[in-house]
Amino acid sequence: MSQGGPSVVGEFSLIRRYFQQAALAAAAPDSLPVLGIGDDAALLQPAPGQQLVISTDTQVLGVHFPHRYQAADAAYRGLAAAVSDLAAMGAEPLGFTLALTLPDTAADWMADFAEGLAQCAQDHRINLVGGDTTRGPLNLGFTVLGQVPTGQALRRSGAQAGDLLCVGGSLGDGGAGLQLALDQPLPAGLSRHQRDYLQQRFWRPQAQLALGLALRGRATAALDISDGLLADAAHLAHASGVAVHIEQLSLPAAPALKAWPDNTRNQWMLRAGDDYRLLFSLPPAKLASLQTEQPDIRVIGQLQVGQGVWLDSGQGPQLVSGPSGYQHFSPSSAGAADD
Amino acid sequence: MSQGGPSVVGEFSLIRRYFQQAALAAAAPDSLPVLGIGDDAALLQPAPGQQLVISTDTQVLGVHFPHRYQAADAAYRGLAAAVSDLAAMGAEPLGFTLALTLPDTAADWMADFAEGLAQCAQDHRINLVGGDTTRGPLNLGFTVLGQVPTGQALRRSGAQAGDLLCVGGSLGDGGAGLQLALDQPLPAGLSRHQRDYLQQRFWRPQAQLALGLALRGRATAALDISDGLLADAAHLAHASGVAVHIEQLSLPAAPALKAWPDNTRNQWMLRAGDDYRLLFSLPPAKLASLQTEQPDIRVIGQLQVGQGVWLDSGQGPQLVSGPSGYQHFSPSSAGAADD
Repeated sequence: MSQGGPSVVGEFSLIRRYFQQAALAAAAPDSLPVLGIGDDAALLQPAPGQQLVISTDTQVLGVHFPHRYQAADAAYRGLAAAVSDLAAMGAEPLGFTLALTLPDTAADWMADFAEGLAQCAQDHRINLVGGDTTRGPLNLGFTVLGQVPTGQALRRSGAQAGDLLCVGGSLGDGGAGLQLALDQPLPAGLSRHQRDYLQQRFWRPQAQLALGLALRGRATAALDISDGLLADAAHLAHASGVAVHIEQLSLPAAPALKAWPDNTRNQWMLRAGDDYRLLFSLPPAKLASLQTEQPDIRVIGQLQVGQGVWLDSGQGPQLVSGPSGYQHFSPSSAGAADD
Repeated sequence: MSQGGPSVVGEFSLIRRYFQQAALAAAAPDSLPVLGIGDDAALLQPAPGQQLVISTDTQVLGVHFPHRYQAADAAYRGLAAAVSDLAAMGAEPLGFTLALTLPDTAADWMADFAEGLAQCAQDHRINLVGGDTTRGPLNLGFTVLGQVPTGQALRRSGAQAGDLLCVGGSLGDGGAGLQLALDQPLPAGLSRHQRDYLQQRFWRPQAQLALGLALRGRATAALDISDGLLADAAHLAHASGVAVHIEQLSLPAAPALKAWPDNTRNQWMLRAGDDYRLLFSLPPAKLASLQTEQPDIRVIGQLQVGQGVWLDSGQGPQLVSGPSGYQHFSPSSAGAADD
C-alpha cells in the first residue's frame, strides 16, 4: 500500500488482517504480482506481446449503492463492475488496486467487506495488488489492470454496417434488482428463487470475462452495459459512426422479470443500468461459431449506415438518440445522491 | 472514462472540456497511450523487457488537504504525491487515471482543477489515460502507472548493514508548508520568498523522478517520505531487516525553516509528512558518482546490523521505533478529519 497522507489507524495491520485473501485470490503462480502489497507500488509483469488495459471505477454510498447495504456486497459489486470493463476490452485480468475511503475502522465492517472482496477476486481470478486506505466519507475506488494481445483489444469504434448487434445475456436484471435493493414493493408472482436471482444479479454481478476472450478476433466493437442498453448502444453508434437498430421483441429478459408488467420490464431492459452484459457488434459469418462457445448470447438488432440509436417496438424504427449520444442528465441513481 | 454507475451530468462533455490538456501532457508520441479516454478502458504499451509499476493514492478534503484550498493546488498535490511512489520505485511514468468524486459540477472549480492537473501532468511528463467522474463527497483517487526494466525496481527490502542512509533534499518543508496552508501564525523572520517556497513545496511538490532513475543499480532500497522521516525509515528498517541510524545534525533543512525555533524545525524534519523526498540506502562506493549527477542528496545516517530506527541527537543513538515499525496512531492530519 502506498504511504500518501494520514491513513486509518494501523494501515499495515489492517491490510494484513483483512486483505490477505483478496491479494491471493487468483492462486495460479503466473498470475501473482512480482511485488504486491507493502512497498511504494506494486510490480506486475505483463506477458510479452501484450498491451496493458486499465480502467477506474468509483462507488459512492447513496449514489452507486443504497444506504442499506452489506459491506461484502458493496465490495463484490464494486470490483465486478470494474472488472466488467476489462471483459469489455477482451482482456484477461492482471490485478487491481483499491482506494478505500471509510469513516472509521469498524472491525466487523472491514471483515465483511474483505470477505466480499476476496470472493469477487476469486470468482474473477484477479489479485489485489495494492491500494490506499484513508479516512473520510465512504468511497470505493477500484482500478483494474488487464492484458490483451497487441492489436486485439475490443474497442467501441470498429462496428460496421451489416454487423449484427448482440448482447451477452438477459437485460433489465439491474433494474429489477434495484427494486429489491431499495426495499420497493415486489410483485406477488415473484418466487423466492427469482428474488434470489435478482439479488445476486444486483449485488454479485459476474463480469463476462470468458465472453470477452471469445469475442477477440470476432466482434468488431464491444462495451459493457452499465448505463443501460440505449445509452451504451449510443456510445457504440457514436464511436463507430454507424446507426444501431434494436428490435424490442428480441431483447432477452430473465424469467424473474416476467413478474412485472410489460411496460416496466421493457423500460428496464432498455434503460436500467448495471446489467454488466457485453454489448457487441458481430459480422454475421462469426455468429454460429460464437454461439457454440457462448450459448447465452442473443442477437438484438443490427448495424446500418447512418447514425444514432433506432428502436423498433413493432411499428418500425424510431430514433431514440442522435449522433451526439445518450447521456443520463437525470441519472436514476440508487438512493439519495444529495450528500 | 469507464461507465460504471450514474455520473456527474454529461460525463463525456466534462472530460472533453476539462481534461483534454492533462490527457496530452507528455507530448512525446511514444508516451501517448494507444487508446486513451473514451472507451471502457485505456490501452498502454509498456516497452519490451519492462515491469509494470502501479500505485494508488487517495486525497480526501479535510484529511489530506485543508478545507481552504485552491482546486488547482489540490489536483497538483494529489497527482504529485501519487507520482512520487513511481519515483520511489525508480520507474518512469506511463500514465495515470483519476477517480474524481465531487459534490456538484461547478464550472470554475472544474476549470481550476483541470489547470492544476494539466500543469502537474506536464511537469512530471505523465498523461491522464482514463478515470471516472462521480457525484459525492469530494474525493480524489489517483492511480499512477509506470515502467521499470525487469529486476531494477527500487524496493524497500534490499538495504544492507554498512550502506549509507541518504535523502533526496531538504526535510521538514511539508510541516512548515502545512502551517501556511492552515493559516497558522508565521514567524516574523520568514521572508516573502521563503513563504512562497514553502507554499510551493506544500501545494506543488515535485516527485523526484530523475533521482529515482539515477538510483537504479545504485541504491539497495528506497521509498518516498510521505509519512515523515522516522516513520518511513521504520518501513525501510523493517522491510530490509536492518537497523537504521539517523544523525539529527546531518538532517538538511531549507533556509526557510530557519525562521522557526530549533525544536519545531527538528520535529518537522523528523516527523512531518508530505516531504516527498526519496529516502534510500546506498553502498558507500556509489556515493561519489551519484553526487555528481544529483548534487542535492545528503547522507543522514547509516544502516547497521540490528533492527528499528535509532536517532542520535548528540548524546548517542536512542531507539525511536522497534522492529514492528512506526505507525501513526494519531495522524497529524491537515484540518479536521471528522466529516
